[in-house]
Amino acid sequence: VAFSPQDVEARRWLCERLSEVGLEAGTDCYGNVLGTWPGVQRAALIGSHTDTVPRGGWLDGALGVIYGLEAARVIREDRPDRSIGVDVISFQDEEGTYLPCLGSKSFCGLLQSGEIEAARSVSGEPLSDALGRAGFKGEPFRARPDRHIAFLEAHIEQGPRLISSGTRVGVVTSFVGIRRMTVSARGRADHAGTTPMTMRRDAAAPLFRFAAWVSEHFAAAGGPDTVWNIGKFAVEPGAANVVPSGAQLTLEFRDSDPDLLDRLEAAVYEHLQQLARETDISIEAQATARIPPARTTETVSDVIAVAARDNGCEPLLMQSGAGHDCMILGKSMPTGMMFIPSIGGRSHDIDEDTDERDIVFGCQVMVNAVERLLMT
Amino acid sequence: VAFSPQDVEARRWLCERLSEVGLEAGTDCYGNVLGTWPGVQRAALIGSHTDTVPRGGWLDGALGVIYGLEAARVIREDRPDRSIGVDVISFQDEEGTYLPCLGSKSFCGLLQSGEIEAARSVSGEPLSDALGRAGFKGEPFRARPDRHIAFLEAHIEQGPRLISSGTRVGVVTSFVGIRRMTVSARGRADHAGTTPMTMRRDAAAPLFRFAAWVSEHFAAAGGPDTVWNIGKFAVEPGAANVVPSGAQLTLEFRDSDPDLLDRLEAAVYEHLQQLARETDISIEAQATARIPPARTTETVSDVIAVAARDNGCEPLLMQSGAGHDCMILGKSMPTGMMFIPSIGGRSHDIDEDTDERDIVFGCQVMVNAVERLLMT
Repeated sequence: VAFSPQDVEARRWLCERLSEVGLEAGTDCYGNVLGTWPGVQRAALIGSHTDTVPRGGWLDGALGVIYGLEAARVIREDRPDRSIGVDVISFQDEEGTYLPCLGSKSFCGLLQSGEIEAARSVSGEPLSDALGRAGFKGEPFRARPDRHIAFLEAHIEQGPRLISSGTRVGVVTSFVGIRRMTVSARGRADHAGTTPMTMRRDAAAPLFRFAAWVSEHFAAAGGPDTVWNIGKFAVEPGAANVVPSGAQLTLEFRDSDPDLLDRLEAAVYEHLQQLARETDISIEAQATARIPPARTTETVSDVIAVAARDNGCEPLLMQSGAGHDCMILGKSMPTGMMFIPSIGGRSHDIDEDTDERDIVFGCQVMVNAVERLLMT
Repeated sequence: VAFSPQDVEARRWLCERLSEVGLEAGTDCYGNVLGTWPGVQRAALIGSHTDTVPRGGWLDGALGVIYGLEAARVIREDRPDRSIGVDVISFQDEEGTYLPCLGSKSFCGLLQSGEIEAARSVSGEPLSDALGRAGFKGEPFRARPDRHIAFLEAHIEQGPRLISSGTRVGVVTSFVGIRRMTVSARGRADHAGTTPMTMRRDAAAPLFRFAAWVSEHFAAAGGPDTVWNIGKFAVEPGAANVVPSGAQLTLEFRDSDPDLLDRLEAAVYEHLQQLARETDISIEAQATARIPPARTTETVSDVIAVAARDNGCEPLLMQSGAGHDCMILGKSMPTGMMFIPSIGGRSHDIDEDTDERDIVFGCQVMVNAVERLLMT
């Protein structure tokens, strides 16, 4: 977990490994680790993050950092005198223990004023305390468009598409946009035995109808890759014999088409208004997050796809349903991202794993892609 | 609340008042208070309960006990030499702080073996500790079919029918039967961004559909007085971006027709099986309570209705959506129950109240009914 003693140790360890392969390695004040290929004006930037979630697995996102280390190692071993080198990076706190994508946001100059000061862990520890505790020093590393020809990130899929289709490499063409909404209804608590149905103001009833409608409407109006989820649903006061006075749910939906997200969100508001009219229950809906979709760079994706085919794998072109540092890096330089299968689609759990042959195969594809990129 | 210092004090207070009007008063080992009209072989039994719920109001069920006290007082004042007298009772723990209808169940010999030993409060205190603490003594009072010609109970309605129709007296013809069911679904937690819709096993989705179906089906297949409620709904793990691995709800429905309750329960199982087949989600339903409907005695109800008309009120014949001591007493003797309006239909809350004129009017009807009963 970001800023834990293990995280600090892992980042020091990574600096040593990067130095061993001939890169100039160090950390910045946030704990970002950067290994710089010496003596070149330009370099491909490869990496991901080494922090994880509590009880997280060993691959998300250390895999992408180690792929970077290995790519730098073999390419340097092969031709240390290249004019375009390989830089390797491990970003800090991608998982948001304190601030999601802290490291990559800082790297791309996207931290908002006051964002560091306001950030806290779930347990309430301020990010500033964690920074002091960890003791990282140095000016923040910054993206250098003059130097970095592209950012490449490898990651386990965290979903079942590759593993279930038997495909060893996925090329990420886009990151989904995310809409998260909270829907609240307010009615009146009444005795559920003595209050006639016509006299009730049951807050939960319209939200049950809404939840059932979401399944039907999103399946019909969404795209082939649209996903949605009602992951929270609470009823007040929550007694078997009391008519619900309040009900609240969260709806989240994701797609890479921003117009489709807009249409779905508009349909949600319209349907809720209709339900409120029909049931005379006060319903409020609020968007709590609107993360816009993002795309990787087509030319970089093409290079990864060609590298995969070179190794005998027709890659799956896919959207990423989760956010990654690569999504942030896209604001500063060309980007490409590849997925390798995760067994059972598991992640964020100690059971997270990938067949070792898939790990090795993915690394070969990555190195092949980087080599192609250095030649362009 | 039953067995609280206030409850013990209230029951001692009641004994004094009953003695003042010439009844022989005392408590039994449970705290039931009985005032016996001396020198008669037969008596009408009037009463209810003086315990309430935490933060409960002042009328549920003290009103019915005080009506009994007042009926005994005026009838004794009028003709102390009657051959049929008026006994007054306040049952213990009708509200089920430890054991619902403890007092009336004991009175009617309906306590099951081991029931006292197993009963505990929500906070975990055994009933036996509460009994020891309160220190009530004496053999349990018992219903005496040779003596008691009928049991009459007055109570606030706890619903809005009387207050909203402007009727001052309701005559209860039946007590609804109650079915309570727990429905649980088990699916699989997955990342709600990275798992395609077709690969999810969302435990909440079929229960949302079920909840929406309940509203439609019960409205169509239920009777005019059928009521139902989904008062609890929980989703696991309960995170916006995690597909629900579990979902659980409680469904409660009430009607005075046992066949209708059976048909509705059967339809619930059938629909859940269909949903389980369609969604491939494992769904379990379990009936956690099946309280059969009960009826009051027609001749006693008629007497209350005539008394109401005598006082210029055409009473509303109604079913009781809640349980009462009267429901228990029906197994031992003829019973009648009357409701008076409760403002806003409120009860089980300190805001519970009734217009003082309605309280007085109801008492006049009760006394009139008792007098008629004593003449039959």
